[in-house]
Amino acid sequence: MNEVYLDYNASAPLDPRVDEAMMPILTGSVGNASSVHRFGRRQAAAVDDARGQVAALVGGRASGVVFTSGATEANNLALRGAAEAAEGRRRMLVSAVEHASVARPARWLAERGLVKLDVIEVTSGGFVEPAAMEQLVGDDVAVVSVMAANSETGVLNPVAEIAERVHSAGALLHCDATQLVGRLPFDMAAAGVDLVSMSGHKICGPGGTGALVGTRQALGRLEPLLHGGGHERGLRSGSLNVAGIVGLGAAARLALDERESESARVGVLRDRLVAELEARVEGVSQNGDTARRLPNTANLRFAGADAEAVMANMDPVAVSIGSACSTGSIEPSAVLLAMGLSHEAAFESVRFSLGRFTTASEVDTAVQSAAAAVERVRSLV
Amino acid sequence: MNEVYLDYNASAPLDPRVDEAMMPILTGSVGNASSVHRFGRRQAAAVDDARGQVAALVGGRASGVVFTSGATEANNLALRGAAEAAEGRRRMLVSAVEHASVARPARWLAERGLVKLDVIEVTSGGFVEPAAMEQLVGDDVAVVSVMAANSETGVLNPVAEIAERVHSAGALLHCDATQLVGRLPFDMAAAGVDLVSMSGHKICGPGGTGALVGTRQALGRLEPLLHGGGHERGLRSGSLNVAGIVGLGAAARLALDERESESARVGVLRDRLVAELEARVEGVSQNGDTARRLPNTANLRFAGADAEAVMANMDPVAVSIGSACSTGSIEPSAVLLAMGLSHEAAFESVRFSLGRFTTASEVDTAVQSAAAAVERVRSLV
Repeated sequence: MNEVYLDYNASAPLDPRVDEAMMPILTGSVGNASSVHRFGRRQAAAVDDARGQVAALVGGRASGVVFTSGATEANNLALRGAAEAAEGRRRMLVSAVEHASVARPARWLAERGLVKLDVIEVTSGGFVEPAAMEQLVGDDVAVVSVMAANSETGVLNPVAEIAERVHSAGALLHCDATQLVGRLPFDMAAAGVDLVSMSGHKICGPGGTGALVGTRQALGRLEPLLHGGGHERGLRSGSLNVAGIVGLGAAARLALDERESESARVGVLRDRLVAELEARVEGVSQNGDTARRLPNTANLRFAGADAEAVMANMDPVAVSIGSACSTGSIEPSAVLLAMGLSHEAAFESVRFSLGRFTTASEVDTAVQSAAAAVERVRSLV
Repeated sequence: MNEVYLDYNASAPLDPRVDEAMMPILTGSVGNASSVHRFGRRQAAAVDDARGQVAALVGGRASGVVFTSGATEANNLALRGAAEAAEGRRRMLVSAVEHASVARPARWLAERGLVKLDVIEVTSGGFVEPAAMEQLVGDDVAVVSVMAANSETGVLNPVAEIAERVHSAGALLHCDATQLVGRLPFDMAAAGVDLVSMSGHKICGPGGTGALVGTRQALGRLEPLLHGGGHERGLRSGSLNVAGIVGLGAAARLALDERESESARVGVLRDRLVAELEARVEGVSQNGDTARRLPNTANLRFAGADAEAVMANMDPVAVSIGSACSTGSIEPSAVLLAMGLSHEAAFESVRFSLGRFTTASEVDTAVQSAAAAVERVRSLV
């Protein structure tokens, strides 16, 4: 059986066109983008182009782009940076289904007494109900973090409505849009989001790249995480990863250009995957509100079949349980538990995530593989 | 006139062999190194190879390698991580000639009241005299940071002797070896260094890569800077930049294999550059102790000639003043001032840094260019 990769939400393959954009920098270019000589200025010009491309993808300003080593660093910068700069406001709110790179820095800050942390519960559909925030948001809140789309279920949050409530209390809204950008439109200015995190390797760009994009006012309310040469307007020191940044910019441009057609195509494949599995396998159900969801993701419960065993039996078709970032954990998915699933149901849930290079024949292979794996695992009980 | 790049200490060109090592990962590989499926395991195996290569370059253990986005992050992790984990020990010592990515996080920690910071003075030759530390080191010190080789002058510190004094007080020694590794031997175990920072793009590896390498005990005394999925044994969360890490490993291997012959060759070129300039230009002097210095670096004062003007007149030959990371600063080099140079002398000093691809003919071009530039600038006064 051919290898099939349906784990795009963990990491997407590099688009060959991104690789092509990076090559001239990797092989034919030298210099530190901070140097004033011609070598440095050429590097800086390449970085500036990428800044515009990244800003365009999220509806931000080019001057608001802070390049980071990925979404984890962007999320940490947003949360720790806002907490350390906040004066008077000591509370932080994060949704119950955030990625570990939001949930854990928030918890760390709370454990050290630097913030008081409150968790925003989600519905059984996996999203934040704006009304549920009313009691939590107050003028003692520094920052609220609610993701645009969940990595495990693909479920979307009503970000604009959340922003309204956050702003009425004078707090900042941070939004981890890592899984949404490149799949659905995102406009931080229109939605009223103050700080947005994104990652290169989730949009067919290079690993080790990402950005925090902020409004002028929000960036002014952050302490840097990395101190040093004062790069990125003092918010993120460290010699710029020029080839990576150029790749991130190219990936952002492709994502913006092709998002609509790609999501339409991938959505059809995802729906076909789900429909075929529902037709062939008994006891399949979908986790998360399917009416508000990324077009590439399906989180499926196969009742009575342990997900880890299903996944192992699907090899060489790659899917996932929980997020890659919690690999090795023997805990069930915190996201699914927060939605009210039982431990049992969470342990029976598998994530399928498709993307740019997924084909119909790969989907068919995955359906066969999953159906056979579930049958085998159930027969062993 | 041809372009000549003599600014290796700011950033070195990518070795084509490193590019070749990265290509299979960039173009033919997908998966998150934390994923348990076959795609993820292949990525993890590539990372493990690189871990061994990086450890070998600094005389550390593979399991002590924490991959970061560069030396700036490694330095911040060492200093902030040690300060935040320290119990009882509230003092931090850093030498007066550290890079901004050590000096500034140290100052930030002091400004926020998290540590009491003391600066270790240097001699007029630019190095730390171990005896000068006697009064400073005490059992209230958490961490001492002294670089292996200075980025502006190339001057080396007596790291092993410093380590002895630091350890006698029970403190940790962090050493920013970014400029030294790949040029001279470095063995953290033999020297007694607890934490070592290094960077990819200074050893002809990719930008956006680096590592903090630590002893088991030292890593156990660090709080992470980036929280999230718990990568790198919980010390540095964030999906691994697999292509970058493979490139860093390849660069480390090449550096270890070729360091001796390359440094011999480059040292001859550097000496020729200095000798020729001394022969052709009046009023040239060298900053820093030339008896203990990297083989690739010369920091020259041209009396009566403003260094910024000299540098501008040398285009398209690229050299630098101060470090790239303080570009745009109107302050004279803090390193040179710490060595006792006057403001005037510091403003007349230019750094030449050579490397793997520097040729004799490039050195000759640079000599002509510098001599002419100094003459022109002096004539304009």
